Amino acid sequence: MTATPPPLKIALLGAGTVGSQVARILTEDAEMLAARVGSRLELAGVFVRNPDGVREYQLPSELYTTDAEALVDSADIVLELMGGIEPAKSLIERAIGNGSAVVTGNKALLAQNGPELFDAAAKAGTQLSFEASVAGAIPILRPLRDSLAGDTVNRVMGIANGTTNYILDQMATTGAAFDDALADAQQLGFAEADPTADIEGHDAAAKAAILANLAFHASFSLDEVYCEGITKITAADHEAATEAGYVIKLLAIAERIGDGAVLRVHPTLLQREHPLAAVRGAYNAVFVESENAGQLMFYGPGAGGSPTASAVMGDTVSIARRLVRGGPGRTHTPKATLPALDVGEASTSYMVVIRVSDRPGVLASIASVVAENGVSIETMRQIPLDEDDTVVEESSEEYIEDVPESLLRVITHRAKERDLAATVSALQELDVVTEVVSVLRVEGN
Amino acid sequence: MTATPPPLKIALLGAGTVGSQVARILTEDAEMLAARVGSRLELAGVFVRNPDGVREYQLPSELYTTDAEALVDSADIVLELMGGIEPAKSLIERAIGNGSAVVTGNKALLAQNGPELFDAAAKAGTQLSFEASVAGAIPILRPLRDSLAGDTVNRVMGIANGTTNYILDQMATTGAAFDDALADAQQLGFAEADPTADIEGHDAAAKAAILANLAFHASFSLDEVYCEGITKITAADHEAATEAGYVIKLLAIAERIGDGAVLRVHPTLLQREHPLAAVRGAYNAVFVESENAGQLMFYGPGAGGSPTASAVMGDTVSIARRLVRGGPGRTHTPKATLPALDVGEASTSYMVVIRVSDRPGVLASIASVVAENGVSIETMRQIPLDEDDTVVEESSEEYIEDVPESLLRVITHRAKERDLAATVSALQELDVVTEVVSVLRVEGN
Repeated sequence: MTATPPPLKIALLGAGTVGSQVARILTEDAEMLAARVGSRLELAGVFVRNPDGVREYQLPSELYTTDAEALVDSADIVLELMGGIEPAKSLIERAIGNGSAVVTGNKALLAQNGPELFDAAAKAGTQLSFEASVAGAIPILRPLRDSLAGDTVNRVMGIANGTTNYILDQMATTGAAFDDALADAQQLGFAEADPTADIEGHDAAAKAAILANLAFHASFSLDEVYCEGITKITAADHEAATEAGYVIKLLAIAERIGDGAVLRVHPTLLQREHPLAAVRGAYNAVFVESENAGQLMFYGPGAGGSPTASAVMGDTVSIARRLVRGGPGRTHTPKATLPALDVGEASTSYMVVIRVSDRPGVLASIASVVAENGVSIETMRQIPLDEDDTVVEESSEEYIEDVPESLLRVITHRAKERDLAATVSALQELDVVTEVVSVLRVEGN
Repeated sequence: MTATPPPLKIALLGAGTVGSQVARILTEDAEMLAARVGSRLELAGVFVRNPDGVREYQLPSELYTTDAEALVDSADIVLELMGGIEPAKSLIERAIGNGSAVVTGNKALLAQNGPELFDAAAKAGTQLSFEASVAGAIPILRPLRDSLAGDTVNRVMGIANGTTNYILDQMATTGAAFDDALADAQQLGFAEADPTADIEGHDAAAKAAILANLAFHASFSLDEVYCEGITKITAADHEAATEAGYVIKLLAIAERIGDGAVLRVHPTLLQREHPLAAVRGAYNAVFVESENAGQLMFYGPGAGGSPTASAVMGDTVSIARRLVRGGPGRTHTPKATLPALDVGEASTSYMVVIRVSDRPGVLASIASVVAENGVSIETMRQIPLDEDDTVVEESSEEYIEDVPESLLRVITHRAKERDLAATVSALQELDVVTEVVSVLRVEGN
């Protein structure tokens, strides 16, 4: 370390919502950043497709370039904020090949090509940081990788997608149907014109893989995540959840089971008192259960230009400090070989809503089918259709020619996913069962 | 880095609640730790005053020693978990002098001698880590120091003392008086026989200084923290708070004001919807407001052997990884010179409860005294004494010989602490005011 180290050259790839805010911070907070790093961070240039476009934060025009490769080659630290697989992947590989450090917020790329990129960075002795790729501004990379490095994380549950969290919130509070809540979210800019990646859970699944890799010091890929979106959630599901004291959240869950792990994304019932239940709208949160620390939660904005830029800058300053003081780069190096298990190995509780004929003995036959499949019932509640929501005792049922129907809400104790699936199949074959209306997993009980 | 690096020698100073759990983790999780570090962590010995004492986790007797200095001299990493100023300070200085890395959970020592110890560690090119010293198991050191290193933190508010949080919770939920809630906490082991450090806010003040140093990359000491405990909080305060939609929490607050900062610990009213309001019992939480990331919260167990041991082990593994891969040590190095300002410079809202004579014009004279002192009123509510809690309109007051009294609850807009103090003095001199019953600060409005 010399007395006055030369400035560190920063290449910015992309000038969208996040890139613009990073450009602003590098410009407006240059003094503060220099004090914290011990050297100036100099913005060498910004790669954009159209140098004449209007940006949220406008830099001098000579900083914009369409020659991404020359820009990457000139930099000590490359900030990849374009998104998408290509050219992001090739440019990151080029930077790593040059021995430059890389910061990315590209969860799709990491979920698809993370292992090979981390491996390349480790071999080159450089660094690939990715705090911005999961849960926006919430610091979760360093807490999981370093602060909990001497502990064993057993489970991570995250509300990692603000769009679906907003839609589920709206449905719960206004009674809206899914399609209406989605249209509302699109109108307000909380959901994209093509909302598939969000509402089908693909975005949350990419984050589940990244969270699992950090929490378990492992190497999972996107195709190892079981994924169910929120498109089938109905207003009736929300009503049933509320009535039973739950809220519905789309959770990204990674948990150790024996010597393996199950990664899954699906709508989940959480008790109203659970710390994650209070996370509203566009906020994200990550709930961690570890052997020694116990239950921890990390909460903050899940997206947005400035919050995500804060995460990018945290990575950038950390790398820059290391470049100033010397020492090898660090990247994500998996230490554990945890096989990904089939979702059938997961254990949770379930809320099953069944439409049944109101015949004598219906509860008994359902209870016995459930028990035969190795699942035990915590509560069972019969709800007459089109009437007030009151409990009907089994003995009060009447058998009449035109068989009336009612809904039965069963909440199970913790059971294996595969046993529950077998239970549902068996229920569907029962004469007294008209329809298995919904099956929702319950966590945190 | 050689192919098989030699084990790293760990000296453990203290075998109390936390030390015992650290000994357990080092023993039982040795394989996992070796995989994560790339080298074994070998417990070289444990300094105790009485080697024959019974510990929560019993090690082979030859590991216990009363010769702390020889143990420190033999170690690569020294874990100081004794607490208290001496001999902890001398042993840490000795370890630093040897070039060994140090992990401590000693908030009292850091609050008193932190700057000189950090300075010594920086000069020796070694490392002094202290995650366990604040908010138990909650990872807060790396998020504030590294993850938010490219952001400007404007304010940190922490529930950093589980004892007072438990007592305030009990008072709020059971209506208990302070003394009874304290006795209850002592009986359950949540408060010590001499509870002074907790209930007078001294423990929270030490944590406020550490949080401020991390958040602002600065160097504050304990005597720069304004400190007010919870001993004067009454059941009536809780009633008034509940009635107005607030909960009372003891907060450790550090906030930037202009080019300085105010550090303060005091009972605080928080709106029931505030994320910190839901933090119950022995849990801790740190709420952070930063320029770019916005509002973040970190939540988890605030104390206890295993959770605190998790934080100690996170620091230990991070240091050990660095020793294995090479590179200079890092310690807390203040980059900013933020002067500590007098608490009079702080701005908050206030809830002031005043006992007044029920005479015509009382509200008007109080409102004008408040306004004269530069404070503006958000709401003003008159509560008849010994009657149902109903709002009495000013016009309904009656002037009678034996002047009846009522309570007046005033909530102000944000005002300077010194203006509020002047307001309270002026109110006390008003004829219509019998007593200023309580003055409580309000945050997060």
